[in-house]
Amino acid sequence: MKELLLIGIGAGDPDYITMQALKALRRADVIFLLDKGAAKHKLNALRREICARYLEGHTPRFAEGMQPEREREAADYRASVDELNRDKQAVFEQLIDEQMADGEVAAFMVWGDPSLYDSSIRIIEAIANARSDLSYDVLPGITSLQALTARHRVPLNSIGRAVEITTGRLLAEGWPQGVDSVAVMLDAKDTYRGFVGQDLHIYWGAYVGTADEILIAGPLDDVAERIAVTRLEARERNGWIMDSYLLRKSGTVRN
Amino acid sequence: MKELLLIGIGAGDPDYITMQALKALRRADVIFLLDKGAAKHKLNALRREICARYLEGHTPRFAEGMQPEREREAADYRASVDELNRDKQAVFEQLIDEQMADGEVAAFMVWGDPSLYDSSIRIIEAIANARSDLSYDVLPGITSLQALTARHRVPLNSIGRAVEITTGRLLAEGWPQGVDSVAVMLDAKDTYRGFVGQDLHIYWGAYVGTADEILIAGPLDDVAERIAVTRLEARERNGWIMDSYLLRKSGTVRN
Ligand SMILES: C[S@@+](CC[C@H](N)C(=O)[O-])C[C@H]1O[C@@H](n2cnc3c(N)ncnc32)[C@H](O)[C@@H]1O
Ligand SMILES: C[S@@+](CC[C@H](N)C(=O)[O-])C[C@H]1O[C@@H](n2cnc3c(N)ncnc32)[C@H](O)[C@@H]1O
Repeated sequence: MKELLLIGIGAGDPDYITMQALKALRRADVIFLLDKGAAKHKLNALRREICARYLEGHTPRFAEGMQPEREREAADYRASVDELNRDKQAVFEQLIDEQMADGEVAAFMVWGDPSLYDSSIRIIEAIANARSDLSYDVLPGITSLQALTARHRVPLNSIGRAVEITTGRLLAEGWPQGVDSVAVMLDAKDTYRGFVGQDLHIYWGAYVGTADEILIAGPLDDVAERIAVTRLEARERNGWIMDSYLLRKSGTVRN
Repeated sequence: MKELLLIGIGAGDPDYITMQALKALRRADVIFLLDKGAAKHKLNALRREICARYLEGHTPRFAEGMQPEREREAADYRASVDELNRDKQAVFEQLIDEQMADGEVAAFMVWGDPSLYDSSIRIIEAIANARSDLSYDVLPGITSLQALTARHRVPLNSIGRAVEITTGRLLAEGWPQGVDSVAVMLDAKDTYRGFVGQDLHIYWGAYVGTADEILIAGPLDDVAERIAVTRLEARERNGWIMDSYLLRKSGTVRN
């Protein structure tokens, strides 16, 4: 048998790591690294930093998966996600077959929480269902949204109300029905700008929890342009950006 | 100056605590305990357990706030929440005034994450705004929803789709528009039962992450009754229950 651990490591500060995650990492024989793209170097450096700081002399090997690069702006979003996931599954399987021995434990250090806009759970489940020599477990981690709200020191929800977690792509279709708070991830297109004039408050953050963290909050009408400029500059400076934001109807900010 | 730390401790397993939270707790002179009601004893025992396990010989004092008990089923939900929060604010202020000296650091060990259906941030903000001798910070923690999805090994969202986080009370008004995944907290009334026959899948958990954890998952039509019975029995056995669930439109479960 081989054992896989999908370990949420938090989204930013290496100290977001949980004790549960550290105990699991101390059991790992090998750590699989799978990121790609412009942020890969930074994210893997944070992973190694966590291991260097907290594994108390335990030194798992690192094995890097080789992912084929794909078109980022495919016309059909779902189809391109499916393709990405097929690629990713092949990479996972290769790592499992070639980089771990029977009886070993492998860990994936998933950015943030494995349950939130991340394909690892689905992929590992598909692999584990297709073979009988694999067990796996999932450990939670601090999401980027929790990092965002903590750094802004704001609640995610207003009292007794619902919150929608969504993507920039979906938000572009309009304000979600029935909620006063919307948390937005995966927005490459400054979608919040389309909501100026609707009496919203925004809490925006980039690279939250890291040394590069940028936070901007205020009435959307007042800060939207500043966020857009800051975002563009930061992305150019770093070559990549990860940012997210919470939008709230202004009447409910203080509730 | 006095310094307050609102520290998310995770919702269940003491090992959900983050390194950041532990470092903050090691700086605390005093830990304020504020829970009340039937779960208070258990939750405070978990807090003390975290301190005993991980503070490396640092021993902050504990100070317990005295909260007046209020009617649980008030007719006007918002009004009763407001009352509860006014009471809670008075208790916080009393603790700050009477249980900490100038220059000291006090920590609140908030269940789960302080940003999610918890009033501590709003209350501390209100107090800090009204006086000049207080600074405060917020540290994220693993929410009960992340514990739930990790233990069920399922994603919170389906690919590229939105998720609504809501309460039992709001869900009773109907399925939220435009989402295929709904995460429900604070449901004392088995509201999921009203959605039988709508081709939903449910992932339910009680006391998730603790020794008493119960998990049930499956097509809602098949498991709703079993959840209701299990929930009732558990609540009677323990005198209280904390449970939450994820509902997903069945067509999207495997996506
Ligand atoms: C593929 S999703 C993964 C989310 C991750 N599983 C989590 O729990 O946060 C990537 C998106 O998360 C958000 N994100 C991740 N880390 C972030 C950070 N440190 N600061 C701001 N946003 C972040 C951005 O919206 C980014 O587009
Ligand atoms: C007042 S809210 C606080 C939520 C907390 N701040 C969090 O981050 O999870 C309490 C609700 O959280 C959910 N909850 C908290 N702990 C839980 C656990 N261990 N298992 C299942 N549900 C839990 C229940 O729905 C409960 O009604």
